[in-house]
Amino acid sequence: MRTYELIIIGAGPAGLTGGIYAARKKIDFIILTEDIGGMTNYSWDIENYLGYQFITGPELVEKFKEHIKEFNVDIREGRKVIKVLKDSINFKILTNSETYLTKTVIIATGRRAKKLNVKGENEFRNRGITYCATCDAPLFKDKIVAVVGGGNAGLDAVLQLSRIADKIYLIEVKSELTGDKFVVEKVKGIKKVEIFVNSKIMEIYGDKFVSGVKVRRNGEIIDIKVDGIFVEIGSIPNSEIIDFVEKNEYGEIIVDCKNRTSYSGIFAAGDVTNVFAKQIIVACGEGAKASISSFEYLKYL
Amino acid sequence: MRTYELIIIGAGPAGLTGGIYAARKKIDFIILTEDIGGMTNYSWDIENYLGYQFITGPELVEKFKEHIKEFNVDIREGRKVIKVLKDSINFKILTNSETYLTKTVIIATGRRAKKLNVKGENEFRNRGITYCATCDAPLFKDKIVAVVGGGNAGLDAVLQLSRIADKIYLIEVKSELTGDKFVVEKVKGIKKVEIFVNSKIMEIYGDKFVSGVKVRRNGEIIDIKVDGIFVEIGSIPNSEIIDFVEKNEYGEIIVDCKNRTSYSGIFAAGDVTNVFAKQIIVACGEGAKASISSFEYLKYL
Repeated sequence: MRTYELIIIGAGPAGLTGGIYAARKKIDFIILTEDIGGMTNYSWDIENYLGYQFITGPELVEKFKEHIKEFNVDIREGRKVIKVLKDSINFKILTNSETYLTKTVIIATGRRAKKLNVKGENEFRNRGITYCATCDAPLFKDKIVAVVGGGNAGLDAVLQLSRIADKIYLIEVKSELTGDKFVVEKVKGIKKVEIFVNSKIMEIYGDKFVSGVKVRRNGEIIDIKVDGIFVEIGSIPNSEIIDFVEKNEYGEIIVDCKNRTSYSGIFAAGDVTNVFAKQIIVACGEGAKASISSFEYLKYL
Repeated sequence: MRTYELIIIGAGPAGLTGGIYAARKKIDFIILTEDIGGMTNYSWDIENYLGYQFITGPELVEKFKEHIKEFNVDIREGRKVIKVLKDSINFKILTNSETYLTKTVIIATGRRAKKLNVKGENEFRNRGITYCATCDAPLFKDKIVAVVGGGNAGLDAVLQLSRIADKIYLIEVKSELTGDKFVVEKVKGIKKVEIFVNSKIMEIYGDKFVSGVKVRRNGEIIDIKVDGIFVEIGSIPNSEIIDFVEKNEYGEIIVDCKNRTSYSGIFAAGDVTNVFAKQIIVACGEGAKASISSFEYLKYL
């Protein structure tokens, strides 16, 4: 079986930037991924990727794809990595199809949305409950919706929905909205948005589709009729594919400032790690560093 | 005198990305800088800034300028910062014109390349002479190049070029290569690399582009035909403006993974710091992190 110098797992901003650096250094590598772009596909308006004043997530992903194509990077899409294992001096990567051998690995698998864990959540998933405003906002034209979560992701969902839905309840468990001030003010200025702080979803109910939620607000239970619920309460790192590197209490892979994990030859970058800021441009920088680190490491093999 | 919440010094990739994040968080801040773009202005062709397949340094800087304009960031150009001083609980920044007060500072002043200081060097800058192998090596496919400097940076440039260029002269002023032994041996094992020690570039010549160099070797002048020259004799961080933060032996400002320096309220990002990779996309990510860090800090003031 062929042994690669490097396998990058994931093709979001971190994995793709890592890939560009690896290609430029002529490292013998491939990228294994389920899709290209990762969570960026689900971002609506991106204003903080230096170089683009205003771009949607899917548009930015298109730019990434064009860019990576230029380097003839071997991206194997539709590969779900099951496990990364040690294999004598190399690493073995099991996927839903083939198995691969490699000298170094960059884990850039990103994160997935956190769930509410309340009654009705699983039952109504995709029948009124969604974890992706960019994907599903357009389905709620002239409807009444609830957005759960007052951080940047929740605010972003509200902004998207404000152009589509009739009425939006923004439900936040803390005593104030926690997103960027600029966006908080923007959201507060929208008439059809009603903000409930100190509020927690207790139950989701309906018939075939969601028809309402029960919310505990300052100790009191309120019933709100809604047609849809956008859950935007954060995310979980996709780090289960590896067991032999150190992780923090949140399951994030711990990396040093050179994107090295606790295990030699295994690097990690972007939102799957304990990196301080979960941001596209930061993930890009981290991916570049991980790639250069793996090159440094390969030099001494 | 008005006290800002934040002053960013420098408007290269790190300073500008920091600025965008600060603007989105409605931090009361300005950017003090001599020019916009920093060293990016001197990059020839950039192929590794995710989202742009192929762009010149100055073109990318134009994109940066358009972007930052969108946020109405107050950038004071033509300001050479002389010194950052402590001022009771705040910081005082002396420039070539005004003096400013601020609660936090992000130092993003970048670096400057060490120059050879020989005839022809300024004339052929970006026309065959480059100070960044990672940026420009791929442009010399099947060409003849000289790398100046036998330290790790020079050796790294040779390794990168060995997969790309046709022939590489490695020119070192000392009697032996000074980089890591392992890498020195690796470089010595590459057939297309010819090593000249005790050798010093005396002159660079050409027409529109570099066509050769004159080298003094053991007292004798040799003429070598080359298409490109990679000057890898080091660079210097622009860190002289501050005295009260920890720096490493190279004069780089030491930051942690959150871009905090040893002094509370002073942050730093990009090439002026000890960050592992001196790359545009990395500097952007670092600038974003520094900005978010300063915001975290300001919250508790």
